[in-house]
Amino acid sequence: MSDRAQTVVTCVLPKRFSVKMGGRLVFRLPVRLEFLMSSTASASTTAGPTPTAPLQHERDDRGVHTLVLDTPASFNVLSEAMLAALQQALDAVAADEAARAVVLAARGRAFCAGHDLKEMKARPDAAYYQDLFARCSRVMLSIQKLPVPVIARVQGLATAAGCQLVAQCDLAVAATGARFGVNGIDVGLFCATPSVPLVRNVPAKVAMEMLLTGMFIDAQEARARGLVNRVVEAEALDAEVESLLQAILAKPREAIAMGKEAFYRQREMGIEAAYQLAGQTMACNLVHPVAQEGVQAFIEKRKPLWSQ
Amino acid sequence: MSDRAQTVVTCVLPKRFSVKMGGRLVFRLPVRLEFLMSSTASASTTAGPTPTAPLQHERDDRGVHTLVLDTPASFNVLSEAMLAALQQALDAVAADEAARAVVLAARGRAFCAGHDLKEMKARPDAAYYQDLFARCSRVMLSIQKLPVPVIARVQGLATAAGCQLVAQCDLAVAATGARFGVNGIDVGLFCATPSVPLVRNVPAKVAMEMLLTGMFIDAQEARARGLVNRVVEAEALDAEVESLLQAILAKPREAIAMGKEAFYRQREMGIEAAYQLAGQTMACNLVHPVAQEGVQAFIEKRKPLWSQ
Amino acid sequence: MSDRAQTVVTCVLPKRFSVKMGGRLVFRLPVRLEFLMSSTASASTTAGPTPTAPLQHERDDRGVHTLVLDTPASFNVLSEAMLAALQQALDAVAADEAARAVVLAARGRAFCAGHDLKEMKARPDAAYYQDLFARCSRVMLSIQKLPVPVIARVQGLATAAGCQLVAQCDLAVAATGARFGVNGIDVGLFCATPSVPLVRNVPAKVAMEMLLTGMFIDAQEARARGLVNRVVEAEALDAEVESLLQAILAKPREAIAMGKEAFYRQREMGIEAAYQLAGQTMACNLVHPVAQEGVQAFIEKRKPLWSQ
Repeated sequence: MSDRAQTVVTCVLPKRFSVKMGGRLVFRLPVRLEFLMSSTASASTTAGPTPTAPLQHERDDRGVHTLVLDTPASFNVLSEAMLAALQQALDAVAADEAARAVVLAARGRAFCAGHDLKEMKARPDAAYYQDLFARCSRVMLSIQKLPVPVIARVQGLATAAGCQLVAQCDLAVAATGARFGVNGIDVGLFCATPSVPLVRNVPAKVAMEMLLTGMFIDAQEARARGLVNRVVEAEALDAEVESLLQAILAKPREAIAMGKEAFYRQREMGIEAAYQLAGQTMACNLVHPVAQEGVQAFIEKRKPLWSQ
Repeated sequence: MSDRAQTVVTCVLPKRFSVKMGGRLVFRLPVRLEFLMSSTASASTTAGPTPTAPLQHERDDRGVHTLVLDTPASFNVLSEAMLAALQQALDAVAADEAARAVVLAARGRAFCAGHDLKEMKARPDAAYYQDLFARCSRVMLSIQKLPVPVIARVQGLATAAGCQLVAQCDLAVAATGARFGVNGIDVGLFCATPSVPLVRNVPAKVAMEMLLTGMFIDAQEARARGLVNRVVEAEALDAEVESLLQAILAKPREAIAMGKEAFYRQREMGIEAAYQLAGQTMACNLVHPVAQEGVQAFIEKRKPLWSQ
Repeated sequence: MSDRAQTVVTCVLPKRFSVKMGGRLVFRLPVRLEFLMSSTASASTTAGPTPTAPLQHERDDRGVHTLVLDTPASFNVLSEAMLAALQQALDAVAADEAARAVVLAARGRAFCAGHDLKEMKARPDAAYYQDLFARCSRVMLSIQKLPVPVIARVQGLATAAGCQLVAQCDLAVAATGARFGVNGIDVGLFCATPSVPLVRNVPAKVAMEMLLTGMFIDAQEARARGLVNRVVEAEALDAEVESLLQAILAKPREAIAMGKEAFYRQREMGIEAAYQLAGQTMACNLVHPVAQEGVQAFIEKRKPLWSQ
């Protein structure tokens, strides 16, 4: 994100945006929203459907995949096209044996405003809905199943399934102005799927208050409650994500892959089974060359030489 | 609560009250306790068993049921009569298809001091005890199973099964002076049943410290740890509960009912099964007229017209 | 700990220590470390393997067992000898029917630096590693299975399996200077077994950040996140542990034993089964003479007479 020239485009606040917030506003929306966009984008992208792909997917030579939700005019909603693009991108990361990390970012004022309600309304059919939520859940579970850490870079509003995305990531960094809500209940739709990772991140009563009332929490509260790891000024967001990336890149991919899988599996087990699984994981990790070299380097008081 | 004229009745501190706190006082008890009581109550109610029903049950025309634990002279203990009255009231709410929410409140200095130890001591019989705790657990589970949110309004001390009540509610608002403890261990009775919802609300070591030492936490700590949602001055307690109620009343009952059930069920599952259940719930919710209208209203940039 | 005269021995920082911290230092290490040691210890103990037993085990006449990890020169690592000594000590506590509590303490700058990497490296064999982690997990589970509370007294660094020890204890008190990390990933070994109790104590994203990046948290953050109960100045550490001990000693052993077992078992169950188990536990506890006496004393407004 930081390597692009950026210009500020000011546009009139769409009315639907204020509706989206529900009757009980937690923060005041400005009359005008400023969208931070790359210099190649034209103001017209805020006026209609984005003509480009909904998701920008870049990979740097370190193996860091950056996925940018890129339909800011529609608040980066999880439309069918966006879900398909996310699934494709996550599958590509899973297939990339040299991948090291994923940054899930977004462009515009919102990080992600959840499902695409217009699209949903156009097909009022239970079987379609069930398939749609199954596809969305598959995206979410793909994040957990990836062998590399996924970091949410939250620059703005994360609502409903957008908040779910943040909760589902392994780590999250938020700008001070970010806000988090699971406010589907404002349109009569309880955020049941977002509640799955939410209650696995924050205390039950906090989750319930957000789900029942549509209440938003700010970035500091999200950090205090366990929904995000770090909160920084918007200008420092890329640097903070980069510091997490560098910490991760300094460790061997294989150890992280084994550990991440064990972490989520053992969490669902009774503690005796959890210890058994975790012990096996550590034994496998320890015979692996990366750990043998790491431990040898430790003993020889030098940095490990990992071929990555 | 707020619609009653209130007078302050000052009474001498009962000795048993200070015993109840255990040897290790976390806060100093004043020599005199002030009971906030409705103007119709006489000072004599603090001197003996309350002649009226142990539980006041009101329902307003919005569908809000207010249950008031009303044996302040015995610190609103969960006597057999109180448990039966609570079960009856919760069953009545479950049967009320127009119910929208429950407020669980209490009168006097204590919110609820747990089980009735005198009653317990009078029947030292394992089968009786097992039946008693089963009845109490049924009350607790009834709170979770209700299709409407249950809000604890905690104006004072919540100890042992009284703290359990707070933990079991979906939401909780506390006055700044409220205190929370699971101090059965002070009389040699480990608060095992209170630990069930407690450890599902607060971190394990916090729960263990409270259970092992009988330590009390104050309202701010209870909020920080996840046991209550909001803390306000005693005078603002009704207003804060009302603000939660209004947020809930503005949403459709059907969506909340589906969501609350799914929330607690999915929490006990592995994450894949949890997503499957939650996705089915959202599909069912979305085909329901309340969500169809809510989403349509969102698209048309108007408020939803829900017939409630 | 407090009954020993203490002298400060200053020694040159071993290089391996700074390697242990990983590339990304969270706190700055001083050039010199000061080891707090008993006056009977000589400076030479920091220069080579301690000739004495790795674990000091004392029992006072109150039934309080104090286990002191006592190989400060090697940062009290969980060597095979240390694991065996810990298992033996915990088994002895389990066999002591008059035991009331365990304090798990350590001597030196570190509380415990995790597994003994040199020992591990000397036998690069998967079966050996699996057996080693199984023995370590057995130690950890023995802490949970003991019928008496186990309090971690954390005076310094707790890393990897050392942090796991803290997480696994029922309660923990830390000095302000204590630091906590699960930084095996720095040597290419993901702390899978430490993650088992860690994620059962702190929010998932906090655990993940520590596991993936090797980041350390300080004592205040550890308290805020649920990893330790109390934080005090180093000079007040013994007094704070003693205050917890006195609170525990004032309760009957039998009630704590029943309660502790039920607490950990019910936590792994669905809420209905949890209530059933907990209700049975309370019934058993209540018919026990300690509770009958406790409740009777409460009714008679006197202190319970427990024969311990």
